[in-house]
Amino acid sequence: MPLIQATRYYANTTKNQKTVEYTVDKFPGYVRHDHFKKLSKEDVEFFKSVVGDNGYIYNNEDDLFPFNTDWMNKFRGKSQLVLKPKTTQQVSDILKYCNEQKLAVVPQGGNTGLVGGSVPVFDEIVLSLQAMNKIRGFDSVSGILTADAGCVLEVLDNWLAEKGYMMPLDLGAKGSCHIGGNIATNAGGLRLLRYGSLHGTVLGLEVVLADGTVLDNMSTLRKDNTGYDLKQLFIGSEGTIGVITGVSILTPHRSKAVNVAMLGLNSFEDVQKAFKQSRSELSEILSAFEFWDINALQMFKKHATPKAVMEQEYPFYVLIETSGSNKDHDDEKLTNYLEKMMTDGVAQDGVVAQDETQIRSLWSLREGFTEAMGKEPAVYKYDISMPVNKIYECVQDMRQHLKDGGVYGQEDSPVTDVVAYGHVGDGNLHLNIAAKRLDPKTSSLIEPYLFEWVAKHQGSISAEHGLGVAKNEFLGYSKSPVMIQLMKTTKNMLDPNHILNPYKVISNF
Amino acid sequence: MPLIQATRYYANTTKNQKTVEYTVDKFPGYVRHDHFKKLSKEDVEFFKSVVGDNGYIYNNEDDLFPFNTDWMNKFRGKSQLVLKPKTTQQVSDILKYCNEQKLAVVPQGGNTGLVGGSVPVFDEIVLSLQAMNKIRGFDSVSGILTADAGCVLEVLDNWLAEKGYMMPLDLGAKGSCHIGGNIATNAGGLRLLRYGSLHGTVLGLEVVLADGTVLDNMSTLRKDNTGYDLKQLFIGSEGTIGVITGVSILTPHRSKAVNVAMLGLNSFEDVQKAFKQSRSELSEILSAFEFWDINALQMFKKHATPKAVMEQEYPFYVLIETSGSNKDHDDEKLTNYLEKMMTDGVAQDGVVAQDETQIRSLWSLREGFTEAMGKEPAVYKYDISMPVNKIYECVQDMRQHLKDGGVYGQEDSPVTDVVAYGHVGDGNLHLNIAAKRLDPKTSSLIEPYLFEWVAKHQGSISAEHGLGVAKNEFLGYSKSPVMIQLMKTTKNMLDPNHILNPYKVISNF
Repeated sequence: MPLIQATRYYANTTKNQKTVEYTVDKFPGYVRHDHFKKLSKEDVEFFKSVVGDNGYIYNNEDDLFPFNTDWMNKFRGKSQLVLKPKTTQQVSDILKYCNEQKLAVVPQGGNTGLVGGSVPVFDEIVLSLQAMNKIRGFDSVSGILTADAGCVLEVLDNWLAEKGYMMPLDLGAKGSCHIGGNIATNAGGLRLLRYGSLHGTVLGLEVVLADGTVLDNMSTLRKDNTGYDLKQLFIGSEGTIGVITGVSILTPHRSKAVNVAMLGLNSFEDVQKAFKQSRSELSEILSAFEFWDINALQMFKKHATPKAVMEQEYPFYVLIETSGSNKDHDDEKLTNYLEKMMTDGVAQDGVVAQDETQIRSLWSLREGFTEAMGKEPAVYKYDISMPVNKIYECVQDMRQHLKDGGVYGQEDSPVTDVVAYGHVGDGNLHLNIAAKRLDPKTSSLIEPYLFEWVAKHQGSISAEHGLGVAKNEFLGYSKSPVMIQLMKTTKNMLDPNHILNPYKVISNF
Repeated sequence: MPLIQATRYYANTTKNQKTVEYTVDKFPGYVRHDHFKKLSKEDVEFFKSVVGDNGYIYNNEDDLFPFNTDWMNKFRGKSQLVLKPKTTQQVSDILKYCNEQKLAVVPQGGNTGLVGGSVPVFDEIVLSLQAMNKIRGFDSVSGILTADAGCVLEVLDNWLAEKGYMMPLDLGAKGSCHIGGNIATNAGGLRLLRYGSLHGTVLGLEVVLADGTVLDNMSTLRKDNTGYDLKQLFIGSEGTIGVITGVSILTPHRSKAVNVAMLGLNSFEDVQKAFKQSRSELSEILSAFEFWDINALQMFKKHATPKAVMEQEYPFYVLIETSGSNKDHDDEKLTNYLEKMMTDGVAQDGVVAQDETQIRSLWSLREGFTEAMGKEPAVYKYDISMPVNKIYECVQDMRQHLKDGGVYGQEDSPVTDVVAYGHVGDGNLHLNIAAKRLDPKTSSLIEPYLFEWVAKHQGSISAEHGLGVAKNEFLGYSKSPVMIQLMKTTKNMLDPNHILNPYKVISNF
């Protein structure tokens, strides 16, 4: 599988750091909460005493830049202090002090998020978990791994590979993202179809609460019904109610056989037919079912040279991955399935990767769209989920809506393309609107129109990216007032001074 | 698969209802909370106006008995009123009133629990969900089912069978238990190894909170990262913080091919070897890996005639189930695995079911132990989880401990057998101590000794049965004081008057 490191983006962009806009200038609705203290020299001295000389960055704009800014250069804060604790106790000491002093804190993992959740908005202290990166233990009978939250996903996956196991999740940013950040944002990604969500695979967490209390729930048991499963609250909470410092996770056996195939199809209806049939024929060996449209392919071609494409172009493509324990059996199942798809006219063309290199090529196409989009002058990125049969209706509707609004379809239109790809199996669409520039008319045509469309079809306005600062004001489109009220009550219970990741998820208390 | 309906037990036991001891007489530590109001005539009139003439049972000891008593006749309460609401709104009206009047309530599903969680301790009102039993919807592309909480698990499973799908969980009580109760107790059961826990498969819940607020979180999306995943709190909360009224759950494709094999083995070390090898060779088609010891088999034989056994007896047995989409492939994988187990001397004998009847026979053996144990004069039942390699050490240690304590091993010993069976794949042991009678000396030898043993090995004192009234006082063996404190805070947040299922899970506030 290809490695698309989010960190690669930094190399291109740090030069331009002076030109990256601050979040508060771009989203002017944000106001710094008055009750947060401003960092003092005494505070810095205290933190130095906790983390030691190599455990912090203070008052150095260049060094602070990658912690203040997300990899897309879309969000930028003004923190003067990054702390890199090495132990759970240090995290506890830091938070206890911050809570007492009312100093705001942004917990940060690999900083590969897409919604600005992991960078400060104002002067919040960045609490980076990158120095907490040790594997704590592994049980080779049960496949249960325990590790520090700052371990990089790909490092864990490679470490497990030697033992015949794998991480139950995989995503494009695996070379940079932390397992703690994955859990804090409830990352979905490419293996969810097969191995399920982190709510099922995470068995235990160690979390430091806002007041410094260490919540030790590092269970290594598949079954434990002794009281409320409180760790679940922190999965997907985006660092707003506690800082995850340790993780216990169930890892599946690494498959002995992996196959990857790509199909070219004429319609999204055919994509759905191919998916339904794959659930029945490939069933237990199906590990990914991804789709993209021709616009996505053309966007890739504009910025890179794809290694694996068909001779002809088709309106839709799907990538199918199987993972199993017996190569002959899997080959037979896949061949039968592909023949059926061709015979039935569901697919117009198909290729099957013949070796590891070809598997990488096919995956690099699917995983390359995010990077390709990043090279456009401006992109409106959306990550929505809805019933599978509505996915492409949403894309077509948006194209028409933008045309009707006069911002798309003409030579001089600000919007240049509407690109769709995503995880069919999860009902998850990544909708990307490329533009010559961000402009208010286009923005106001897209939002809240898109969110209303999603809400009308019982979808989610954020399938896997989370809310961060980008989407928190739209929470009402996916959650009822009662749910939002209970979220606020939960936040107040766990972080009464609201020091953890302020301005994110639930913005107004 | 065989159907072992928990309701079958009622037929045998209702005759003896006068002889069933009240919980408070058996566990004399319980004191009725003073702040709960006693039911008045006016209250009953109000409830009648909500649920109508057929929606309640009042003041009729015979009719109330099955709601006041668990199926093992181990726990018995003294409720005078059972309510059977038909809609979420009725549940809301009932709870709003109870909360205002401080009337205690026990939510009840199929009443098939093992720890007394679903029956009253004193005079709590029983809120039965049995009249809320409608399927709300099903999406045949995604396999997502929505249903009322009172639907019986087996009814749902049979309904899905016609559509080529199945419920992701299965357990002995499936003919009686409700899906709402399954979720409220985070039921594990036989399919957890393959399809994971309910924390992963439950996509949405409708919950009525203690004050009557309806929390509508009936998402039908595989991915939805918009805020805290609050529904998770209710999974496994045993009805103490809200009443589940609706369920949205991801259901897997029903397997076209199912195989079941049984092995006879000489040691628990061999059981572990067989398990580890099955994870590698049967991998994606492995759907159950159960074990029992010869004591369990002998207990079964004492009370019933097993249809499927080997000629010789062995110290240990495992039952292996595979489920896949291609019968030929599965047969080949299973045959290879079994041959390897025999050739390597890991298994001493093996049988493979040749048809559906034989599959049922093998499963009825594994599923019959609970029923067989129920025919003993007295049983101390435990459901613990721990690292797989410790499971049988625990059993052997307990036998020795009881012998050393003078209650086991002699003709006149009160303890007659120590029986072990369980889910190897989940590290879950069902430890059953059969006795001529419940006696204080034996009790004090088992508890807290067993819980201390489990805690020492980072296990859980309740793997899948929950805490109920039976184990709530021992919570401290599995959860830290910080965790318990946060559970209490959560309880106070969601049920400030403590009207929901009092005396259970967390007993003292």
